[in-house]
Amino acid sequence: MTTRTVTGPTVAPGSVGIVETKFLDLPGPVRLDCGVELGDVRVAYETYGALSAERDNVILVCHALSGDAHAAGLSREAEEHSTRDGFGADDRDGTAGKALGWWDGMIGPGKAFDTDQYFVVSTNLLGGCRGTTGPSSLDPATGRPYGSDFPVITVADMVRTERAFLDELGIERLALVAGGSLGGMQAFEWAIRYPDQVDSIVAIASTHAIHPQGVAWNAIAREAIMRDPAWRGGHYYDTGEAPNAGMGVARMIGHITYLSAPGLRDKFGRRLQFADDIRFTLTEPEFEVESYLRHQAETFVKRFDANTYLYTSRALTYFDLARQYGDGSLTRALDDVEARTLLIAFSSDWLYPPSGSEEIEAALRELGKPVELHVIEAPYGHDCFLLEEARQTPIIRRFLAERRP
Amino acid sequence: MTTRTVTGPTVAPGSVGIVETKFLDLPGPVRLDCGVELGDVRVAYETYGALSAERDNVILVCHALSGDAHAAGLSREAEEHSTRDGFGADDRDGTAGKALGWWDGMIGPGKAFDTDQYFVVSTNLLGGCRGTTGPSSLDPATGRPYGSDFPVITVADMVRTERAFLDELGIERLALVAGGSLGGMQAFEWAIRYPDQVDSIVAIASTHAIHPQGVAWNAIAREAIMRDPAWRGGHYYDTGEAPNAGMGVARMIGHITYLSAPGLRDKFGRRLQFADDIRFTLTEPEFEVESYLRHQAETFVKRFDANTYLYTSRALTYFDLARQYGDGSLTRALDDVEARTLLIAFSSDWLYPPSGSEEIEAALRELGKPVELHVIEAPYGHDCFLLEEARQTPIIRRFLAERRP
Repeated sequence: MTTRTVTGPTVAPGSVGIVETKFLDLPGPVRLDCGVELGDVRVAYETYGALSAERDNVILVCHALSGDAHAAGLSREAEEHSTRDGFGADDRDGTAGKALGWWDGMIGPGKAFDTDQYFVVSTNLLGGCRGTTGPSSLDPATGRPYGSDFPVITVADMVRTERAFLDELGIERLALVAGGSLGGMQAFEWAIRYPDQVDSIVAIASTHAIHPQGVAWNAIAREAIMRDPAWRGGHYYDTGEAPNAGMGVARMIGHITYLSAPGLRDKFGRRLQFADDIRFTLTEPEFEVESYLRHQAETFVKRFDANTYLYTSRALTYFDLARQYGDGSLTRALDDVEARTLLIAFSSDWLYPPSGSEEIEAALRELGKPVELHVIEAPYGHDCFLLEEARQTPIIRRFLAERRP
Repeated sequence: MTTRTVTGPTVAPGSVGIVETKFLDLPGPVRLDCGVELGDVRVAYETYGALSAERDNVILVCHALSGDAHAAGLSREAEEHSTRDGFGADDRDGTAGKALGWWDGMIGPGKAFDTDQYFVVSTNLLGGCRGTTGPSSLDPATGRPYGSDFPVITVADMVRTERAFLDELGIERLALVAGGSLGGMQAFEWAIRYPDQVDSIVAIASTHAIHPQGVAWNAIAREAIMRDPAWRGGHYYDTGEAPNAGMGVARMIGHITYLSAPGLRDKFGRRLQFADDIRFTLTEPEFEVESYLRHQAETFVKRFDANTYLYTSRALTYFDLARQYGDGSLTRALDDVEARTLLIAFSSDWLYPPSGSEEIEAALRELGKPVELHVIEAPYGHDCFLLEEARQTPIIRRFLAERRP
């Protein structure tokens, strides 16, 4: 169950080393919120650190919209894709950066999620395109890719799949479920659905329900994909082309919502890309930020499946704890939570603003549950959860050190 | 030169009445920033009120990205399009609302731009698709629509066209140039290019250069159009189809940037559109805000040309007074301004935030020029300039009353 760790000149101190993604087929179907029983589910995963004899040191890490199981260390598949880039982080890290897991700064020996103490498990979520069953997987009923015949899934369905996967690893209890953004939503679902199996959760830059502007941005991104003629109603896998034009627009929208206006000003300003003055061109980029967006779109469509984007975006838009579990009351929804809760939010995050975390904190406090919220002043918007590792680490390490015996 | 005014049961008090758009062909070419001499330029316009014998009571009103010459009154073309809707204002005004000019609340007897005192002129801007020469016009050199062979234009080119147009009307001086958003940019250009011909300007929800996030939103909207295969490199007029899919996405992006996050929350919340619970659908709208966006996209593509959107968006992105006129210094750029300046901004406008107006105010003050800035607390985002008429009116009326003799 431990990860093979190879240290060498390419591996930075504190790294979990060279890792590889593994795969596990669930023995039974997953019963989804929509009523479908989804069979033949495969889960892609990575693990870092060693499982204790008591099996009581497990951290489940949950990824966000465009992530995968490769959360830490250097992947053998590094040449093929940049997962770090997949979250809107700056992808100008150089070649070495492209190999790193998306949360490498947080997972490893001595890091926030300390692999000297904990056995960290990371899976690609249900509906994904990086090894776990999703719309690009073969439908056993037809022998062809599901496409848009894949059932519409929810965050609860992702968590059910994670639960079934951990059963197969022989892991019952989790010391911690942690994630940012959609990953934090999964952490909340875990705490509500399996209260006696989760000791604590860390939800970073997340919310109990994305606000209406976030609903809108997600809807527009999905429209951009579905309006691309190459999407073909979701059945494009056999056509030799994908809705890359629309996916590129979706990715551009995502990128701007992940950054803050001041962050964009500091990073790009109104600097022109190719000349000292404007070139009177309609089709070519003029400003640095325009070139950056095109580059982000081009790299993203090479590694990510458009249908996975649609399904995952829909799931995180549906997510609404008060509606799902509280008849409209967030407090009622959280009534069964037993896990200690750590919330981290960022002042400049306007996609998942601090107010969402503050509402969760208030509800848990009202219920007398253990909760703490840290709002970190930082300028990088939603991307902070991937970039502000140094400031999150002491908060998380202290929170974990206070775990109940 | 006066507008035929018909009062009757369908005309509200304070209305300029029934109006119609007229057309004027410029006698000579317009020399553009890009070096091209554009010939055969036609300008669509409307006028409200009466020109004084001294020709000293003229207000030029300049429209924003998706507007036209129909700024006030009830248009005979009302059944065909909704110009008011074109600015992101709420289009649920009912049938009567659809006939109104886009700034009807501001232009008319006793209103902010008082047609009992002033002769108000409104033109469709250069590059437009509502009567003034633009990419959908016939290129005299080929006899076919320009398409993307239309020269790339700037805000200065729009203002040169307006200057040439007013020459034909026999109007030399302007008591006021007024506009919101891109319309305000035109007002600044007027004050800088023709300082001895402009008594005062009113620039509402505008800026001296759109901030980098605004550059990005405009770029993404243009990408959405240009990535639509129906755009065909800008030459789609003969094909029987237009890039409506991409234009719809562009319009959706625009709409969300025109509103504020709190405004969206108050207007739509997370309310579902068709049912009490989610329906597990990927392709159909679920939330009210999703339906609203689709509706906005559908109505917009019926009345607006995609190439005009591209050219106008490019022009407003290029606009940068410090780069154009000040070698990087906004203060230097404004050094020649003689007009009195009134700036109005709105607290919740994040596309054209108050900071842009504050920077202009500071530069004009440094120069000892007469300027005043009002930041209005209002929740509707950039759309405030179309919606907050009642609060802008007294400010503008007082500012105009103080005009120098």
